[in-house]
Amino acid sequence: MTLYFIGIGLNDEKDITLKGLETVKKCEYIYLEYYTSMLHCDIADLEDLYGKKIITADRDMVEKRADEIIDQAREEDVAFLVIGDIFGATTHTDLMLRAKEKDVHCAFIHNASIINGVGIVGLELYKYGRITSIPFQSPGFSPETHYTVLKENKTHGLHTLMLLDLRPHEDKFMTVNDAIKSLLELERKRKEQVFSEDTWCIGCARIGGDHKIKYATAKNLLAQDFGEPLHCLIIPGELHFVEEDAIAQWK
Amino acid sequence: MTLYFIGIGLNDEKDITLKGLETVKKCEYIYLEYYTSMLHCDIADLEDLYGKKIITADRDMVEKRADEIIDQAREEDVAFLVIGDIFGATTHTDLMLRAKEKDVHCAFIHNASIINGVGIVGLELYKYGRITSIPFQSPGFSPETHYTVLKENKTHGLHTLMLLDLRPHEDKFMTVNDAIKSLLELERKRKEQVFSEDTWCIGCARIGGDHKIKYATAKNLLAQDFGEPLHCLIIPGELHFVEEDAIAQWK
Repeated sequence: MTLYFIGIGLNDEKDITLKGLETVKKCEYIYLEYYTSMLHCDIADLEDLYGKKIITADRDMVEKRADEIIDQAREEDVAFLVIGDIFGATTHTDLMLRAKEKDVHCAFIHNASIINGVGIVGLELYKYGRITSIPFQSPGFSPETHYTVLKENKTHGLHTLMLLDLRPHEDKFMTVNDAIKSLLELERKRKEQVFSEDTWCIGCARIGGDHKIKYATAKNLLAQDFGEPLHCLIIPGELHFVEEDAIAQWK
Repeated sequence: MTLYFIGIGLNDEKDITLKGLETVKKCEYIYLEYYTSMLHCDIADLEDLYGKKIITADRDMVEKRADEIIDQAREEDVAFLVIGDIFGATTHTDLMLRAKEKDVHCAFIHNASIINGVGIVGLELYKYGRITSIPFQSPGFSPETHYTVLKENKTHGLHTLMLLDLRPHEDKFMTVNDAIKSLLELERKRKEQVFSEDTWCIGCARIGGDHKIKYATAKNLLAQDFGEPLHCLIIPGELHFVEEDAIAQWK
């Protein structure tokens, strides 16, 4: 029996691959990892398509019930569905390692992720530096990594992709506007001339689906409403003329 | 009518998404970009699944016949299929821009690409630096960018993914072994202590399909046969202990 890790893509139930769908249909237990991303369809739409019941799993469950999931995969085929592609989060790598340790066979069916999905913006994927994320602040936790990574990438003329935090269970999603405010605040604090109201950025929402993409200064993007999640923010580095042409379409 | 850009994934005909398949089935003309990557199935397998004839397009054709493709999309639905995801190559961005200029509607259906596919290796996708590629040498062309990028990424403790050149029409594919030899040669020339026979690397083949992944020193990887294309080479930067555990499985 096999533990299948299956990416289900970025938007809705029809983004699963044929291979993914065939596999889900033959599985006895189907888990959906539902804390690192979200879809633009209901879980019922997935269940209708698969003809199967889905067990949604948050981080806690994946960590605590990993052994149970793995034991099930010893007896029956089990699907572990991930929105986007499979290995965005270390929890999934960890689940795979624990399964392999217990000699449970694993198989992998890939799909699109935001990392290649942003190709649509028109910046060369080869010219992105390190990807970073902006987590929600909380008392005693004021992340600055995204500012540091932006500074580093900028030094090398590279583009920066910032993924924005989400808590689907609380219906809480960071917006492009939140991300820009966070960067402006860090600039006021650290004063390393990394980001200002005049920095040109690309705000993105719902990549892989009904996307909205806007290229403007931070100040002007702040006035935009990007609508439904998920959002991400791109700060271009040095631009090749083909890239300039490409992103001009979003001005 | 619409010009659809459709990623068809990394391995075979069943890696297309349901949305992708539904769309291809309703298109009048179907182009397959067949020079930046390759599949592990025959074009006839795609045609059988789609119930349609496929026109394979090399770089030259995409560039020269772009206007023709765009004009067709004014009258009929046209699919432009890309192995992996859509926007790995600037030619595709260019085709999209030319279509939009001519007011031809474009739509996009994403899929897995090697960029997220390498997640399976177990290194965090957030900790890769700039991606680079190694092109074939030719008289008067001795690329060194991959060495320079590796040096830069290493300085920041980041992982480096090197994509390897291919010429499917000549049945010519760069191997992990070729890539390592190229790096050793550049080290001998530039002596910047970026790479040696003792550098630990991860050699990968056929990610997204029947993969082979090996983690060893450059010297030991040179003795390995990775088999069928496509290959790529990863040189890890600083390792988190979870990453160390993860890649140990490929030793």
